[in-house]
Amino acid sequence: MYRSHHCGELRSNNIGQQVTLSGWVQRARNMGGMTFVDLRDRYGITQLSFNVEKDISLCENARKLGREFVIQVKGLVIERESKNDRLDTGHIEIEVSELNVLNESQTPPFTIEDNTDGGEEVRMKYRYLDLRRNPLRKNLELRHKLGIETRKYLSDLGFLEIETPYLIKSTPEGARDFVVPSRMHGGEFYALPQSPQTFKQILMVGGYDRYFQIVRCFRDEDLRADRQPEFTQIDCEMAFVEQEDILETFEGMVRHLFTEVKGIELPKYVRMTYAEAMKKYGSDKPDIRFDMSFVEITNEAKGKDFGVFDSAELVVGICAKGAATFTRKQLDKLTDFVRRPQIGAKGLIYARVNEDGSVKSSVDKFFNQEDLQLWKGKLKAEPGDLILVMAGDTEKTRKQMNELRLEMGNQLELRDSKVYAPLWVVDFPLFEWDEEGKRFHAMHHPFTSPKKEHIELLDSDPAAVNANAYDMVINGVELGGGSIRIHDQTLQAKMFEILGFSKEEAEKQFGFLMGAFKYGAPPHGGVAFGFDRLAAMFGGTDSIRDYIAFPKNNAGRDLMIDSPSTISGEQLDELSLSVKSE
Amino acid sequence: MYRSHHCGELRSNNIGQQVTLSGWVQRARNMGGMTFVDLRDRYGITQLSFNVEKDISLCENARKLGREFVIQVKGLVIERESKNDRLDTGHIEIEVSELNVLNESQTPPFTIEDNTDGGEEVRMKYRYLDLRRNPLRKNLELRHKLGIETRKYLSDLGFLEIETPYLIKSTPEGARDFVVPSRMHGGEFYALPQSPQTFKQILMVGGYDRYFQIVRCFRDEDLRADRQPEFTQIDCEMAFVEQEDILETFEGMVRHLFTEVKGIELPKYVRMTYAEAMKKYGSDKPDIRFDMSFVEITNEAKGKDFGVFDSAELVVGICAKGAATFTRKQLDKLTDFVRRPQIGAKGLIYARVNEDGSVKSSVDKFFNQEDLQLWKGKLKAEPGDLILVMAGDTEKTRKQMNELRLEMGNQLELRDSKVYAPLWVVDFPLFEWDEEGKRFHAMHHPFTSPKKEHIELLDSDPAAVNANAYDMVINGVELGGGSIRIHDQTLQAKMFEILGFSKEEAEKQFGFLMGAFKYGAPPHGGVAFGFDRLAAMFGGTDSIRDYIAFPKNNAGRDLMIDSPSTISGEQLDELSLSVKSE
Repeated sequence: MYRSHHCGELRSNNIGQQVTLSGWVQRARNMGGMTFVDLRDRYGITQLSFNVEKDISLCENARKLGREFVIQVKGLVIERESKNDRLDTGHIEIEVSELNVLNESQTPPFTIEDNTDGGEEVRMKYRYLDLRRNPLRKNLELRHKLGIETRKYLSDLGFLEIETPYLIKSTPEGARDFVVPSRMHGGEFYALPQSPQTFKQILMVGGYDRYFQIVRCFRDEDLRADRQPEFTQIDCEMAFVEQEDILETFEGMVRHLFTEVKGIELPKYVRMTYAEAMKKYGSDKPDIRFDMSFVEITNEAKGKDFGVFDSAELVVGICAKGAATFTRKQLDKLTDFVRRPQIGAKGLIYARVNEDGSVKSSVDKFFNQEDLQLWKGKLKAEPGDLILVMAGDTEKTRKQMNELRLEMGNQLELRDSKVYAPLWVVDFPLFEWDEEGKRFHAMHHPFTSPKKEHIELLDSDPAAVNANAYDMVINGVELGGGSIRIHDQTLQAKMFEILGFSKEEAEKQFGFLMGAFKYGAPPHGGVAFGFDRLAAMFGGTDSIRDYIAFPKNNAGRDLMIDSPSTISGEQLDELSLSVKSE
Repeated sequence: MYRSHHCGELRSNNIGQQVTLSGWVQRARNMGGMTFVDLRDRYGITQLSFNVEKDISLCENARKLGREFVIQVKGLVIERESKNDRLDTGHIEIEVSELNVLNESQTPPFTIEDNTDGGEEVRMKYRYLDLRRNPLRKNLELRHKLGIETRKYLSDLGFLEIETPYLIKSTPEGARDFVVPSRMHGGEFYALPQSPQTFKQILMVGGYDRYFQIVRCFRDEDLRADRQPEFTQIDCEMAFVEQEDILETFEGMVRHLFTEVKGIELPKYVRMTYAEAMKKYGSDKPDIRFDMSFVEITNEAKGKDFGVFDSAELVVGICAKGAATFTRKQLDKLTDFVRRPQIGAKGLIYARVNEDGSVKSSVDKFFNQEDLQLWKGKLKAEPGDLILVMAGDTEKTRKQMNELRLEMGNQLELRDSKVYAPLWVVDFPLFEWDEEGKRFHAMHHPFTSPKKEHIELLDSDPAAVNANAYDMVINGVELGGGSIRIHDQTLQAKMFEILGFSKEEAEKQFGFLMGAFKYGAPPHGGVAFGFDRLAAMFGGTDSIRDYIAFPKNNAGRDLMIDSPSTISGEQLDELSLSVKSE
């Protein structure tokens, strides 16, 4: 063993002990006759001291140490003259008697500090150096702990972790698959799973009534800032359950994680239907740390010769408490905000509630005080409040208002990062209409069951059918979602039909699942959580990339290993493949 | 919830309770006025009783139930008239008052019993039915428990589970990679990892001094009976350690697993060098549950005009205690055994030690009693023992004798499945000579470090260089292996050179690792265990396939989902690929 202790463990009560430490040189300082070296490892930093008067050659060697050199030292734990209370080890130092350089280091291309000077690209290329920094180390430790506690919770409830295959079968439904050419079966391909969905359902048919897996999933999508081609899911499924059983079980899981990992007692989950979430927040993942919910004033706003409102399907307002103090400049900026192409609103109407209760709006030309008092009443606005109103097509306007509401939440500091407001959104529609393809898509996936009372609408009015589907949302972030599945072969066949699969397509792609349903499939349902996202939420930041040891960049490239890359002609030949030139 | 209890939990002390159970119909029996149904779920079997006199229509419905129907029943727990002591639930039954059929089932293509009538192929196709059988269920439960306990042991020692990427870079060294075409970078490919080897070393450079991961690995090999294209590894790495630290840590891990999962206290590990293992057992994974080690009698056997021995490089014998009773027929069968093409020996010489101490051999024509007594002495044979001798080239003969020794171990029942004899084989050669390619291969992998005292032999006599490499072997099965790695960039470059990599090739494939070594790489080493193999050993069988929920067949095909399969022309176009016809 290269060490008797690690660099985060020695304290005053170790004074007088001979110890051996190993680690990286964080920094070295020469002060008169003394040289001090901060030695770092995963566990902390311990100060080493070298005294010229005691051992001149040792001290000279210490002075040759560069940043990130790997060294081993032996020495005596002594009390520090100038103590550092910010370090756990700040009351002691090691009076070094032996120094071994285990490996040298070139000067790193960026500083290994909490706030580094390295840009994103260079840090990705030298990921092994970036990983030495405290923030990343803490993220990966947090992720490990979340994994351990997730497994503990589920295992204690009788869930079995069962590994499903990574080399599966390509299905065109959903996102694009990554495929893997088969050498033994030339011209044929495996696919990497977008999720173990069908396998976990097969496990339910196989009698494993409580399954989970922390599992990698793959999607060949055009990447956005926060997407990775491979990501990790906590994937779960239960048999002989109803929706309520699942909600309780996984509310319990996330509660357990908050208690064990963050020491936070999560408040009771709010339940909200999809319809209500859209109507009140314009989003299926509302941030309910603050209210400011939508109030529809379409009836009140119409018929006053204001064209924007008169032609609108929906007129909707929010009440920003205490924001009547917003200046004209601030309000103009808000208008610019909603007009940005990403949001795409035409404009923003505002109305301030004065101290005397009167309302002053940006559309006083069309609305008299009586009209505005009606708005005020509906929005429950009080003196000092600011009313913000948008109008247009229902769906678009709600989305735009959602953006505005979140922005107001930010500006009014209502989105406290220390507060967690958990929510189940339930009763999602079963289908969404694809205007371009003139067909229905499954909103969740084709295995999601319709509400029993809506089954009769499947033929006559598919758009009106709600699903036994649910999402867990905390602070506006969708952590996971799932559904009660179809376990009846006739209903499953009907679903494929509505989704536009021919019988042959359905059979080719999902024949094994339909087959399984013929041999005693139990009622079942499940849920999947984004593990990267969960870790990011627990870490208190947005970027999942900082919670993945070796992420890819936005072009799906690993800059450290330089992948993807070309392969040899022999490899291609073996796979019966050729690359087409443009 | 579809049930108040599961089918393995009700006992006599539940008598009088109203319960709800759900599960599968294992079997139904009509006996006069009564119908009995065995209801099965993951946890056990509970008997249901239906009484014609009490409820005729209920009983009639029960009589319509087929095997594997999924049902829910409500009823009263009552004492059973004829108790079944072989079932945990055998003292009670449920007097059913309500029966709901949750799903029907076609008659399964094979019986869902411990000993099924289904052949391998049909059970693979209907894996969801096979998975309902007790033996497979127990295997997957065992595997789950091994995973939980492995994580517990390592996590408690400060190991962090860190996920490494699955979309990495193809390297021609070692086995064949599965590759994944990139759509965004046409003509380029990712590869699926054969192991996370380089990433775990990068993590050591990154300061994560105790890493592990239970991780899927992929190898595109021509499959043998017991190989899978995807398999699972317990992958581990430590920094600032020497070989001894690793051996102790992972001996501890396997000891922990045996204690927690099997309730068995593992004996002390034997340590044996590779050279000794080959000399004494003709194998680098000897089964040391029994001795019968090789004794070389080359000197004693030569010069007696027996051509087979005189021309042999090695004459080697084993002493089978008490096997002098083997009949001529048995001995002929042993000779046939070693002559099989898989073993390829020319013949087998035997010598029985009689009760009076005299020796009777199959080569009495060449060897007199004095000669044979010399054999007897060297082999420490006693009256009643059987000496078996083989001769030829050293390496081949040792391999053949290894097979014979294991066969004798089987025949003499010395390989007790309840006994576990753990072993570390150490000091493997660094290289093995590839006669065909006229070059050296890395015996373990190119990152394994040579013994310090052998470094000077790297240029002059590579074949004589031993490695800091070790394998864990239990009962003749290699459970895992690893090495102390090279952490010095110059030595690593030299290794690539000896292995025949040009500088450009080494840079292209492993440039990132060589780069990492320039920035303060700590001394490090690790080990990886075959998780499927480990589960099979704990389960007491040989076939890893029975410990994988969804294995592939010998042709790399998943018979249930029918994969691999063709993909669409559009998919190929997007990937800039075309399939070559033969």
